Formats: sequence, C-alpha cells, structure tokens
Amino acid sequence: MTRIDGRAPDQLRPVLITPNYTRNANGSALIECGETRVICTASVEETQPQFLRDTEKGWLTAEYGMLPGSGSSRIARRAGGRTQEIQRLVGRSMRAVVDLDRLGPRTIWLDCDVIQADGGTRTASITGAYVALSLAIARLRRDGQLEADPRRSSVAAISVGVVEGEVLLDLCYHEDSRADVDMNVVMTGDGRFVEVQGTAEAEPFSAAEMTKMISLATDAIGRLTDAQESAIAAGLED
Amino acid sequence: MTRIDGRAPDQLRPVLITPNYTRNANGSALIECGETRVICTASVEETQPQFLRDTEKGWLTAEYGMLPGSGSSRIARRAGGRTQEIQRLVGRSMRAVVDLDRLGPRTIWLDCDVIQADGGTRTASITGAYVALSLAIARLRRDGQLEADPRRSSVAAISVGVVEGEVLLDLCYHEDSRADVDMNVVMTGDGRFVEVQGTAEAEPFSAAEMTKMISLATDAIGRLTDAQESAIAAGLED
Amino acid sequence: MTRIDGRAPDQLRPVLITPNYTRNANGSALIECGETRVICTASVEETQPQFLRDTEKGWLTAEYGMLPGSGSSRIARRAGGRTQEIQRLVGRSMRAVVDLDRLGPRTIWLDCDVIQADGGTRTASITGAYVALSLAIARLRRDGQLEADPRRSSVAAISVGVVEGEVLLDLCYHEDSRADVDMNVVMTGDGRFVEVQGTAEAEPFSAAEMTKMISLATDAIGRLTDAQESAIAAGLED
Amino acid sequence: MTRIDGRAPDQLRPVLITPNYTRNANGSALIECGETRVICTASVEETQPQFLRDTEKGWLTAEYGMLPGSGSSRIARRAGGRTQEIQRLVGRSMRAVVDLDRLGPRTIWLDCDVIQADGGTRTASITGAYVALSLAIARLRRDGQLEADPRRSSVAAISVGVVEGEVLLDLCYHEDSRADVDMNVVMTGDGRFVEVQGTAEAEPFSAAEMTKMISLATDAIGRLTDAQESAIAAGLED
Amino acid sequence: MTRIDGRAPDQLRPVLITPNYTRNANGSALIECGETRVICTASVEETQPQFLRDTEKGWLTAEYGMLPGSGSSRIARRAGGRTQEIQRLVGRSMRAVVDLDRLGPRTIWLDCDVIQADGGTRTASITGAYVALSLAIARLRRDGQLEADPRRSSVAAISVGVVEGEVLLDLCYHEDSRADVDMNVVMTGDGRFVEVQGTAEAEPFSAAEMTKMISLATDAIGRLTDAQESAIAAGLED
Amino acid sequence: MTRIDGRAPDQLRPVLITPNYTRNANGSALIECGETRVICTASVEETQPQFLRDTEKGWLTAEYGMLPGSGSSRIARRAGGRTQEIQRLVGRSMRAVVDLDRLGPRTIWLDCDVIQADGGTRTASITGAYVALSLAIARLRRDGQLEADPRRSSVAAISVGVVEGEVLLDLCYHEDSRADVDMNVVMTGDGRFVEVQGTAEAEPFSAAEMTKMISLATDAIGRLTDAQESAIAAGLED
Repeated sequence: MTRIDGRAPDQLRPVLITPNYTRNANGSALIECGETRVICTASVEETQPQFLRDTEKGWLTAEYGMLPGSGSSRIARRAGGRTQEIQRLVGRSMRAVVDLDRLGPRTIWLDCDVIQADGGTRTASITGAYVALSLAIARLRRDGQLEADPRRSSVAAISVGVVEGEVLLDLCYHEDSRADVDMNVVMTGDGRFVEVQGTAEAEPFSAAEMTKMISLATDAIGRLTDAQESAIAAGLED
Repeated sequence: MTRIDGRAPDQLRPVLITPNYTRNANGSALIECGETRVICTASVEETQPQFLRDTEKGWLTAEYGMLPGSGSSRIARRAGGRTQEIQRLVGRSMRAVVDLDRLGPRTIWLDCDVIQADGGTRTASITGAYVALSLAIARLRRDGQLEADPRRSSVAAISVGVVEGEVLLDLCYHEDSRADVDMNVVMTGDGRFVEVQGTAEAEPFSAAEMTKMISLATDAIGRLTDAQESAIAAGLED
Repeated sequence: MTRIDGRAPDQLRPVLITPNYTRNANGSALIECGETRVICTASVEETQPQFLRDTEKGWLTAEYGMLPGSGSSRIARRAGGRTQEIQRLVGRSMRAVVDLDRLGPRTIWLDCDVIQADGGTRTASITGAYVALSLAIARLRRDGQLEADPRRSSVAAISVGVVEGEVLLDLCYHEDSRADVDMNVVMTGDGRFVEVQGTAEAEPFSAAEMTKMISLATDAIGRLTDAQESAIAAGLED
Repeated sequence: MTRIDGRAPDQLRPVLITPNYTRNANGSALIECGETRVICTASVEETQPQFLRDTEKGWLTAEYGMLPGSGSSRIARRAGGRTQEIQRLVGRSMRAVVDLDRLGPRTIWLDCDVIQADGGTRTASITGAYVALSLAIARLRRDGQLEADPRRSSVAAISVGVVEGEVLLDLCYHEDSRADVDMNVVMTGDGRFVEVQGTAEAEPFSAAEMTKMISLATDAIGRLTDAQESAIAAGLED
Repeated sequence: MTRIDGRAPDQLRPVLITPNYTRNANGSALIECGETRVICTASVEETQPQFLRDTEKGWLTAEYGMLPGSGSSRIARRAGGRTQEIQRLVGRSMRAVVDLDRLGPRTIWLDCDVIQADGGTRTASITGAYVALSLAIARLRRDGQLEADPRRSSVAAISVGVVEGEVLLDLCYHEDSRADVDMNVVMTGDGRFVEVQGTAEAEPFSAAEMTKMISLATDAIGRLTDAQESAIAAGLED
Repeated sequence: MTRIDGRAPDQLRPVLITPNYTRNANGSALIECGETRVICTASVEETQPQFLRDTEKGWLTAEYGMLPGSGSSRIARRAGGRTQEIQRLVGRSMRAVVDLDRLGPRTIWLDCDVIQADGGTRTASITGAYVALSLAIARLRRDGQLEADPRRSSVAAISVGVVEGEVLLDLCYHEDSRADVDMNVVMTGDGRFVEVQGTAEAEPFSAAEMTKMISLATDAIGRLTDAQESAIAAGLED
C-alpha cells in the first residue's frame, strides 16, 4: 500500500516545534505535525484546586479545543464528549511526569488549541504541551519561584493504526478516517508507557497487530523526544 | 502480596448475571461482579439518529450512570467527563460486534446503571450490556421484526492493573484506588481486541508489565463469555 | 368494573420492602408495590446547607429519578418539572416527621430511583424513603453520633383516583393513564395528613368523590405503616 | 386571633381585576388581591405542540414568573422548581375547563407575571389567567377564527390554611410564612374541584381541619367567579 | 414624511413617570413613553460582588427583561444576546453617574421589565432606572444608612434614527423596524455623553446624518431630565 | 503625554495581514495589530438559517473567542456577555457591506479567534474577517458557485479613546485599561459609518472630544482599507 503522502509505514510526518509562539502565557509552543497545527500554552495560577487545600501540592490540568475553521468542515464551539476525553488525557499525561509535591501550591493550565487539523491532534497536543510546560517551569525557576525541577521525565505521544490490514505510524486525517484500528500511545522519554488507548473502529484486532503497533510507536517516541529537547533549549535562549 | 479478599492475582470475583431483571425494557440483566452491581437494559426505538437518515442502517448507543447512593460517599447526579468517557466506550464496544446494516433502521439504547459500586463498573457494564442487547435482539427476531442475527461475535470486558508492583486481575475498589496502573480490556468472544485502555495513575509501566496484563485479561474474557452465554440461554427460556 | 389485575376497589397491590438492599449508603431499601420497584437510599453528610449555617439544625432533602429502561418506553435522563415536583414532595414528607433540631448539623439525602415503573412511583418512593431514613438514623444512634431519635412519627403515602366514575385505591399504570382524577395522600402513622394532592386530569370531581378517596387512602396508610415497621425491624437485625 | 389586616377568618382581601391591562397580547388582565398584583396575558399562536401534530386539537400552556423587585427581598430571575410547579398548575387548571377539540389547531400561552407579591400569587394567577383567556377567546370568535365557545365552565382559585390552630381564608404573606398548613383549591364556577393541594409545612393536619378548609374555599370561589364575570364583561365593552 | 403618530421629526412621545409604582423594592417607577411601558425597581443588598471584597466600594448592576406578552407576538423568556447587551448598557449608564466609593459596601440591583413594548425599551429603561435608583438612594439617606449623596449627575437616554432618509427622534416600533440607522444616546443631565451607539441596520450613514442625530438627541435629553426630576420629587413626598 | 510604545496620538500600530493563514477554511487570514493577533476564518455552508427558509437569500454570522492563554492572565473558555456583544458586532458589520440577496441560499461563518491580546481585538477581528470573507467569496466565484460579487463596499474598524484627557488612536491594552472613554468605529471603505460605539468608562465625554475621536478614526480607516486590499490581492495569487 502506498500512503497518500508517500511516507513509509513507520515514517513520521515532519515535526516542527516553535517555542514562545505567544508571549502572554508563561510558556507556549506551536507544534506542527505535517498539516496538523496546535497552539499549546502553559498558564501558571498561584491557587490550588479545592481538593488540594491544606496541602502543599500543586496541580496540572489541561483544556483542548479546535478552532471552528480548523477542520475540513466547520466545527461548532460547544465542547462535547470527545473534547473532554482528550483534555483529561492531556492532563493525566502531564501529571504522570511531574512531581506535584515539588510543584508547590499552584496550578498550571495547559491549553491546546488546534488551528489546523489533519489527524493526530490529541497526540500533537501532548507533545506540544510538554514543551510549553517545560518553558513555564524553567521561568518559574529562573524567577526564583520554584527551587527544584518537578519534572521526573519527559512525555510525548503518537498515533498508530491499522489501515487496510497494514500497521501504519502517525495517521493523517485521510488515513484515520478509514482506519480499522486507531491507537494512541503516550510514553516517557525513558521508554515507559503512560497511556495506551487502542480502539477497533471497525474490525477487532489481533495480538500480533497490537505488538506491531506498540513497536512502531515506541521507536517514534524517541524521535519526538529529541524534537522536544531542541525546542525547549531554543526557547530558553530567547 | 495477599489480596484484600484473599483472591489469587489471576482470579476473578464471583460473576452472577440475572437475565430479565426488569420487565419493561426489551432486554435486561443485573450483573454482579463481587460487590459491584449494575442494571443493564436494552431499549429498542424504531427511529434512526439524524446522521443515518436516508440509509437502512441502525444504531447502538449507551448511557451510563451511578445511583447517588451506590458509592462509598454520595455521588451527585450530574454527568461529568468520566461518565461520558464510559458511555462512549460501552457504545463503541457494542457496535464493534454488531452489523449495523443488518440491525435495520432502528436504535437500541443500552443503559447501564450502577446500583452498588466496588470497582470495575465500566467493564461490568459492557459485559452486562451485551446480555441485555442479545435478549432484545432475540425478541425482535422472535416477533418477526428482524430476520438475521446482526451479532458477529460476543463482547466482554475486564480490568487489570499493577498494585504495589504486582499485576492483578479484576481490581476491587480498594485495589483500584491504590493502583499504579489501571487497564481495561474489551475483547470479543473469539479472542480479538476491541479496546485496550491502559493508564499509569502514578508510575509509568514497562513493556513486560503490559504483556502480563494483556495475558491475564485474555484468559478472563473466556470465562466471562461463558457466563454471558449461560445467562442469555436462561433468559430466553423465561 | 373489574380491575385489570382483579383487585377490589379498596385493595392494595402486594407490598414488599427489602431493607439494606445496597450496602454503601447509610440506609437503604428496595420497595416493590406490585410491579413498581424503587431503590431508596439515605446518605448522611456531616455538612449543613448554606441557609442553616450558624444554627445547630440538620436538613433532609430528596432526589428522585427513573432509570431510562424503567418505563414502558425509554425515558430520557434529563430531570424535568415532574421530577422536581416529586423530589420536593418526598423531601417535605420526610421533614414533616423529623425534628430537624434534634438531627444535628448534618444533611441526610434520600435518593429514590425507580428501576421498574407501573404507577405509584412517587408514593412508593415516600414509603420506601422513610424505611431507608429510619435505618440510617438507627445506625447514627448505634454509632453514638446521635443521641435522641429525631423522628416524631412515621410517614407513608398512597395514590387513589376516579376511573370510569369509580373510586379506586392504589392505581397501576394502566388505571392511572385513564383516570379522571388522580390523588396522592401522604399521612403520618398516627392518622394525620402531611400532603393531599388531588388533580382532575379530565373531569372535575365532586365533594362526595373527594370524601370517598380520602377514606380509602386513610385505611391503606395503616397497612403500609405496618409493612414499614416490619422492614425496619428486620433491617436492624442484619 | 386577630388577623394582621383586621379581616375575619373567612374574609377575602379586596379583589380588583382590570381587563385589557396591556394591548399587545390577545387578552390581558391585571389582578390585584390585596397587595398581590399579577399581570396575566393570553397569547394565541397558530401552531400546535409536537405531540398534537396530525390532530385538530389545540393546547393551553402557562408560564409564571416573579419580577425581581416584586418580593420583600430581590428574587433572582432563574426559574426553579417552585416556578415549574406553579406553571404546570396554572396550565392544568385552564385545560380542565376548555374543550381542546373545539379550540382548533392552535396554542394559547397564559403568562402570569407577579409585579408585587403578598401571598397567594399562584391562586391569583389562575383567577386572572381565566379572565385573559376568556378575552382572547372572545376576540377569536369576534374575528371569525373560532366558531363555538370552547369553554365548558369557569375556573378560579384561592388559598386557605391553618395558622396558630385557626383555619383562615386567603393568606397574605405575613400569615403564609407562619402557617402550619397551606392549601390551594382550584374550583370550577359550578362548584367542582379541579385541584386540591394541601401541605403541612410544620404540623400535620386533622380530618376536621381539612373539612373546614374545603368549606371556606368553596364559598370564596363563588365570589371570585362573580368578579371574573364582571371583568370579562367590562373588557369586552372596551 | 408624515410620522405614523403625527409627530414632528424632533418631537418626543408623551413621557409619564409614576414613582413608587410597586412597594416592596427600595425604589421603583413605571415609565411610559407613548405605548412603551417599563417597570423599573431598585433593590438594595448589603453585600458586595466578589471582585470588590476587601474594598469599601459599592456596585450597581442591572437586569432587563420583557414580559412574554409585551410584544406584538409572544416573546420567549430565555435571555439571549440582545438582553445581555441591554442590561450591560443600563448598568454602565448608572455607574457612570454614581460615585461607587461613596455608595458604601452594598449592591443596588436595577431591574427593568417591559410590560408593553413599542420601541425604545432600552432607553426608557435607563431613564426610568435612574428614577428608581434615586428614590432608593434617598431612602437609604433618610434611614441613616448613607451619609453623602453618591450621585454625581443624572442620566437619561433616547433613541434617534434615519428612516427613509430623514432623521427622526424617539422611534416607535413601526419606525424602528424600517429604520436604516438606529442610534441610542445616553447623556448626563449636564450635557455630556455616557454612551453613543449607532448602528446602520441597512445603509451606512454619513457624517452629516450623525451630526444631526446627535443634535436631536441632545435636545431631548434636557426634556427627559426635567421629567425625571419631577417624578423623583413627587416620589419623595409620598 | 508620551504613549507607552512611543506612538503619536494619531498613529496606528503596525498592521500585518497574512492571507490564507490556515488551509481548511474557505478563506482565512491572520491579522496582527501590534501585539494583538487574531485568526479569522470564513467557512461556507450550503444551508440557510431557519428564518430565511423559502427565500433565495444568504446569511453571514460571526463568532468570536479568545484562546485561554491569549491574555495577560488565563481566560476561561465560557462565552459571556462580552463575547456575545462582539460577535453580534462583527456579524452586523459584515452584513452591512454584503448584498444578502446576491449571496445565494448559503451561510458564511466568520470565526475570529484571538491568539494574543493587547487591546483592539474586536476591531482587528472586523478588519481581518473582511479579508477572510473576501477570499472565500473570490473562491466561490472562481469555482462557479457564485456569479456576481455580493460585496457592496469594504469594511474595517478601529478603536479610539480618551486617556488622561487626550484623544488617542488605536489603544493598546495598557492604554485601554486606563481610558476614560473607549470608542469603536466601524466604517466602509468609502467613508460612511456602519457602527459607532462610544462608552464613558469613567468620565462622561464632551461634544468636542467626540468630534475629535470621529476624525482620528476616519483617517485611520483609510489606511486599514489599503492594508486589506493588499492582503486580498496577495491571497488570491497563492
């Protein structure tokens, strides 16, 4: 099978991360994965959520949105179930690599807003949000508001799927909309799993297909981790 | 490690499925997995959702709720993000094993209402909903409203996790609330995957742990499939 | 006129109350009145509503719901005006027989969830909620959290109506849907009125019909009070 | 006991009904019962509600509101459970005296908006809404849009209660707020009951008190019926 | 062009302001501008909004509504975007002439409810709300709850527009619905602008038309200011 | 007075319009006015709103949003009254220069999403939305879906205000937050007014200040019109 954009089955789309894309938030990045583009911002608030009152812990939470004109047809602004699933996923992924005790009694909001969609918006959101979060944390430390780095690892995400019987990495919208299986894998920079979410859209999948998907995703996470590190380093030099 | 209820790591809690638990819905079942109890009903409506107009296809959709008194502290009735995630999961799981073309231009609603919660309510909902759905389909066929059986396979679900470094099957609430990893596996009766959702609540998990979790879940699904078949058979004799 | 289930005009449907039906709530009961089945739970929260701050009084409040599959056709989950009317009625009925000063600075939530509906769900909810409430109060006293019994009387409820010109007790759904008049009567165990709600659905009713309805209801409340007492006694022995 | 405004226990407050109070609605009236003042309008729409499609029947529905400045302290605009109970009551009361088959395929909205509240707003709303409705019907007939009069009877309402052990007619706010029992009675002009709603706010009531309340209410309805007839006649002469 | 009610282009409709129209609110007025009638009430609450906590400042806020029967066809009760625009405008207009520091730590709610609509409801609301506000302030001072008068000026409002090429003052509904340009002008009693909102509904307008509209509005505000002063004086004598 | 960014009182911030900023919508542009950045998209839907059924007319409607991270502190996603005012203003501005009869039976959605806010977001939205709209219209014409150009003029907008007694053009956030008067002016390319909205935030303004504000705004609109034309021309060459 030839992919619509000519990629090999295990090939990522070009990844471009622009740090400090907007200046008002504490940290920000624009992530582009092929034609998918997501603005990620990290906003620090010096308050805790209700359930952490009387502790010294901090919190990370995420919101996700798609601009109405980002899709191939216009998307209504109302958040639905899909939006909630994604923002809970982004939030859990960030919390998995940050020591909330060391974050101090504050909340960091990660906002991921899709300005152009071509598949993989939730995984791009995770990969980009980690960059925005890292830049915000670095500034808190630079400004003396945070002593130790609360990050325990990095985190990135990628999609993988089965299309017409073949296991493919990093599905674009054209592929995603005809996939039999869609799997999102969130992993740390040191190769451990944070989330695995595989869904048979049409046809249930076998154990062999699952093994293959996990293998492709694991390799790709390494390359995304490198892109994150470069972007964070460039962002801190600005 | 000794489990709180004395089970072996790979042991299911007792499963009891009571078919025809309520009489107004087209199909119904009460499923009990240890102390977790869920009422599942299947209600047939002879209408299609908007997006299927002008087709001959049918639709399956699910809703999930917890009675306010079902938890260890009272649960408010408002549906939040967790509820939406679960009902979308139940709906996808049912649609994965039913041929919507053969269902005809109707909608079947699967309602899963937890009357007592002790962990594993979403997986019990899937396992029980399949029984309610099968009973409703059987009655449509008996009444001549449906010719061929639209089911392509059966579907059941189970949770698995990592608690204090050990991989355990079918977590009760006590175990779930201290698990490092929580994974839900939805499989067909013939051993293929419909959904795999693994989440590191605290500590990311390794490839070896993932393999072990999948293996325990696969074995358990076989036993649940047997329980479903017995319940459906008993329900049809009433 | 022969009733659809062969009952005499002044005959109750069989009443069965199962105490401690679920184990997580502080008190619970399943009440069955013929084919109508309602799960009632009482959940104690050690907080007061806003308007009682700075007092030592407690509060009782109720919520009512119908499982989507409980009716003869599927019922949407959204609460509407009918739901609000019923839950306000249940709450007022419980508060009428409890001394809120003696309850202490806490809130007891009474949740009534219909799992199968065949008429009379609001009156069954009241009768069952009183059992759940009594069991919760007994446990608070047993655990030393409450000194004196705050109950001043018991409370139960029954429906009565006019169908085809005849006054009937305890209408089932078939009768209720063709009734000219529908009346709900809530009374204490010692024979006084807490609520009387009579509605002419089609034809206004005469003073004579009203007198007859009140008479049948008064007799029936005595029998329901006995059933409540037995259920509470059995529940406390568990 | 002396009443705060010096009335006898069985005495109504002065009733003043101004027909045609506003000119845009099809029918309107301002009703004043002592200090309680309610604007009632009847708006005709030449459409049917969804559930009457494919019939020739019409529908009557009511909405009720309180202006924020109408109460002794400011009332928020959001409609709550009390509002819904009242508007359902007003709607049922109007439908009880109108033959919906003869109304034709249209909807009449009765809007009752309290501009000054001093107890008895729901019963004043019913008494006033009937005048607005009658004026709208008369104009439909005058304009040739309706042949026969669809009204079968008139309808009016009054409150009665028990305050400090004494049965009183037509409670003002001062009395209502300290009543042990509050009862609303809706009756036709020919002396039959449409609704009886009695609630023990504090102390359950006896059969003797109920008989006395019904008797006072029945007498008062006659006087309200006369006031309605005069207002309708005056309104038709404008 | 002859106006539908025979007025000259620069002529106001008759203005009638009845102070103390309702007695429960702290201040109230009924304003009638031709057939447009609005009840305005001012309700004092001895609390501050959240954002003024820890200050000694007060706040003024407004709400606006139309009774369902006030328009030429029935208006649904749900507040939409137009309602929000108007109530924000009324609130800003009141705050522009009151020194919030001198108001003390309280909130005054201005409620403007249209009981009959014939164009110009938002400007009538502002003109009437100022009267209700002034009466409430006078009573706070009379009762010793407020020392100095916090009002710095009076405020009133009027509409002006372009209809069939001619600039007209104080549009009634018939004119407003066919206007090319609709402008609302809010001014102080001493001739300065608080708000100017001009909208080309159909045809953009020239600089010359704008100058003419501003001129007509400025003259009219003087006459409205006189009517306000008379009404406040009369209201304080009651 | 020296402005914070050194501009003259009548000087615009640098304006940069990037056409075709995103590729999925029918037309799009990124507009940058100093540090304020707004993504504008135009999405064509081949349906009419309900109220135009049975006509051949089209419709233009707008939505406005701010990304949570676009402000100096995080902005919640819920749309409030300010959002509604702005999107109604943008919609009216576009409709003022388009002949809806010639647009054909379709709807064009203009979405304006602020990615970085520094004052003037509503006026930048209007200026940018016109570019996105023009590009979408050009493509409809190029694709043969629209014969004649429905645009009658161009439209742009700018803010002007009074800060510390001085009239200033194009307020940045620092200036806007301390302005006594804030005015938004929407004009056509041929120098006529579409909207004038002037608000005294603190101090009412004089007739002389109003004249000066209108004059500065009129000049600026000419320069914005040139920038729009260049951007549209460049966008059509892509």
